[in-house]
Amino acid sequence: MTADTVANPELAKAFVGRDVVSMRDFRREEILFVLDLAERFEHTSEPLLGGRVVVNLFFEPSTRTRLSFEAAMVRLGGQNIGFADAGISSVAKGESLADTIRVVENYCDIIVIRHKFEGAARLAAEASRLPVINGGDGSNQHPTQTLLDLFTIRKLHGRLEKLRVAFLGDLKYSRTVHSLIEVLAQFECEFVLVSPQELRMPRDILDDLARDGVRCREEFKPSILPVDVDILYTTRIQKERFVDPVEYERVRNAYRLDREALEVFPRPVTVMHPLPRVNEISTDLDDYEGAAYFQQARNGITVRKTLLSLLLGALP
Amino acid sequence: MTADTVANPELAKAFVGRDVVSMRDFRREEILFVLDLAERFEHTSEPLLGGRVVVNLFFEPSTRTRLSFEAAMVRLGGQNIGFADAGISSVAKGESLADTIRVVENYCDIIVIRHKFEGAARLAAEASRLPVINGGDGSNQHPTQTLLDLFTIRKLHGRLEKLRVAFLGDLKYSRTVHSLIEVLAQFECEFVLVSPQELRMPRDILDDLARDGVRCREEFKPSILPVDVDILYTTRIQKERFVDPVEYERVRNAYRLDREALEVFPRPVTVMHPLPRVNEISTDLDDYEGAAYFQQARNGITVRKTLLSLLLGALP
Amino acid sequence: MTADTVANPELAKAFVGRDVVSMRDFRREEILFVLDLAERFEHTSEPLLGGRVVVNLFFEPSTRTRLSFEAAMVRLGGQNIGFADAGISSVAKGESLADTIRVVENYCDIIVIRHKFEGAARLAAEASRLPVINGGDGSNQHPTQTLLDLFTIRKLHGRLEKLRVAFLGDLKYSRTVHSLIEVLAQFECEFVLVSPQELRMPRDILDDLARDGVRCREEFKPSILPVDVDILYTTRIQKERFVDPVEYERVRNAYRLDREALEVFPRPVTVMHPLPRVNEISTDLDDYEGAAYFQQARNGITVRKTLLSLLLGALP
Repeated sequence: MTADTVANPELAKAFVGRDVVSMRDFRREEILFVLDLAERFEHTSEPLLGGRVVVNLFFEPSTRTRLSFEAAMVRLGGQNIGFADAGISSVAKGESLADTIRVVENYCDIIVIRHKFEGAARLAAEASRLPVINGGDGSNQHPTQTLLDLFTIRKLHGRLEKLRVAFLGDLKYSRTVHSLIEVLAQFECEFVLVSPQELRMPRDILDDLARDGVRCREEFKPSILPVDVDILYTTRIQKERFVDPVEYERVRNAYRLDREALEVFPRPVTVMHPLPRVNEISTDLDDYEGAAYFQQARNGITVRKTLLSLLLGALP
Repeated sequence: MTADTVANPELAKAFVGRDVVSMRDFRREEILFVLDLAERFEHTSEPLLGGRVVVNLFFEPSTRTRLSFEAAMVRLGGQNIGFADAGISSVAKGESLADTIRVVENYCDIIVIRHKFEGAARLAAEASRLPVINGGDGSNQHPTQTLLDLFTIRKLHGRLEKLRVAFLGDLKYSRTVHSLIEVLAQFECEFVLVSPQELRMPRDILDDLARDGVRCREEFKPSILPVDVDILYTTRIQKERFVDPVEYERVRNAYRLDREALEVFPRPVTVMHPLPRVNEISTDLDDYEGAAYFQQARNGITVRKTLLSLLLGALP
Repeated sequence: MTADTVANPELAKAFVGRDVVSMRDFRREEILFVLDLAERFEHTSEPLLGGRVVVNLFFEPSTRTRLSFEAAMVRLGGQNIGFADAGISSVAKGESLADTIRVVENYCDIIVIRHKFEGAARLAAEASRLPVINGGDGSNQHPTQTLLDLFTIRKLHGRLEKLRVAFLGDLKYSRTVHSLIEVLAQFECEFVLVSPQELRMPRDILDDLARDGVRCREEFKPSILPVDVDILYTTRIQKERFVDPVEYERVRNAYRLDREALEVFPRPVTVMHPLPRVNEISTDLDDYEGAAYFQQARNGITVRKTLLSLLLGALP
């Protein structure tokens, strides 16, 4: 990167020391600014974060997210400390989250937190004088996942505006889907929501979309995929959501994507998934032209490198 | 730091390669030397430990202590390897502690050990040709906690000599209190020991203090705090120490510090706690002028940076 | 190291990007090349791997092997991320090994994998475009253990050729022994296989040795040790191999090495063990002239530094 890295120094400045708790904290121009900057970080491994330390507090285990943050940090010359599992933390001794935060903020420059309870990241951000990044809090928010999804979409389609996106599978509990659809709605995208009745998109999100005049239709028959979309974003359907195991088996098989299912598309469609997958996407799609799910993992590093550098005020 | 860092090169030299197992291994002038040096380390993050590796052997989980050592190491450019939990160590295969030490000493420059058994750190120090730091062995010793307490006290009161210190709560099982009182007694401090009868200071420590002519009185009614002290050092009262849960509830509430309780003090008193707290200190004291417990956590990094550098002979 | 480090640039080149899954993948000259190079790495801590990142995937816990790889990496300026226990990995969510690999390969430059299932390392190597090192897959292969054993033997005896080696203990299940004997057989070594009948060397390995004309005899009475050997390589006898606990006790005591047992040797014999030991080697042998088991641990770092540098193409 060169001295002109940050086209907009005012925006960059506004990120220094800031928390990343929810996508709702970001204005549209701020999101675009992060994505623009991320493009420049894609092939950069300058030691911008030399001497900086992150504490990764994974109260809920998440190998993928944790390793992605850690990799982003070390790729830029920074260091990681933390824990991967609350079981071995002093939380077991009955310490409050606010106390844990106020102790560890003495050990580092920035905090990443993953927690099973909604609101935990916000609470941590309020307790700390350091920037806090939400690495997922229950079924609430996981903003770096949303940013990497947006980065992946823009990279593959050249824009975020006016795309047609189908979301498939569990649309009720997937925070990934909820967060992404909210942002894409700001970019005049259209949506097809394909799910079983029992896992349809929550009412309040549908209402918000309707109120904002977003074009959106629900579809409860997965057998016919919406072939006029640019992107199929599919999710894991979890067994524990079903009372009846037979119903679960029926649904998961109905929502399984494979090469045959995609033959109806006139041209390759972008297939996305937050991973890990169980069997929602057949491995025969792994070398499909539109398969983007492993790229999403790669883009996660890029987006996290960008955010860590921004919040730490470490841009050149 | 500059070349004059070490006012006393002879003392500094005596620390190189040394073990830190117990506060009893240190002479008074050595303790003061470490504290003096720590002051210079407070705002230093020079890569004095570049290329050095510590193995952190946490046979007993302790997030706070482990992260503090790890942060100290990376702040000075060093690297950490280790484990946070004996469950995932080869100890599970029946290996002796001495063997574990003689293997891992080939992997590093210095060893930090935390163990639930008293004497484990001494055993490790004897097995190893490398310096070993005791990160807490059962109810025995935790010397870096004592050093950070001393550092905090001197920073806030300008001296260690002739302070009046009240210890509150569980004085029977708290290794933190035992170790600190032994050192402060050498500096002509006076003590008030406030505890329930069943958790009073052990007889042998009281005898030692009496023998050395230390001014010290016990108090079994927590309702009236000793208002003539400079420092209130309180500790966690653990449920498992009580046969009767009703008695436990009574005691823990009686020893709880809050803003109202401190109103009897003519001027702000320094409130210390080794953390984690459960409810021994009300959060309404967190912004109290004398509240020092989060500072203790910060000072832990400083003291550990100092010790690691001293033992590794890495002073400039 | 100087520019002439690699006597054979063609061989060095052939290692770049390669997987290390099984000793059978290496030709004799390649093994010797690695050992030659390792000698030069023994006292080197140049930051050859600065900016490089390994992901250590320990699906099965193994403190010793994990810390050894991590130490090798940081000694050369590289960085580690990973997990020490599959329990906290996304495998718990039902992800396939191939998917895990295809995600984490976006986070790093090289992968180390330890797994309880035979063939897991090969599968990982096939799934990844990055080099993969097998850190032990079930009872199958553990090639870096074999290389460090070979390095230790050559260092102590000046050669690998025509040595007389006794293997003691559990010869049925020890992958360490199986792998080492296969390689040493290529160097015209002779073997004495001392084990209880129920733990004798598997038939197929004996057949291979016989077919290749290797001199080899079995011995089922441990009471008389073969005094004409250069090396005694002993292993842990695991309780779970025995139906009868009395028989287990009898066998483990019969195969225990101590100073008295070695008095029959005309000159010091090299005593090796992959560690951890339980009671197979008395601690009274720890300062015996031929005791090499802690040296093996030290040599593990050297061999792993060498391999990591070779596979990453980081030689000067």
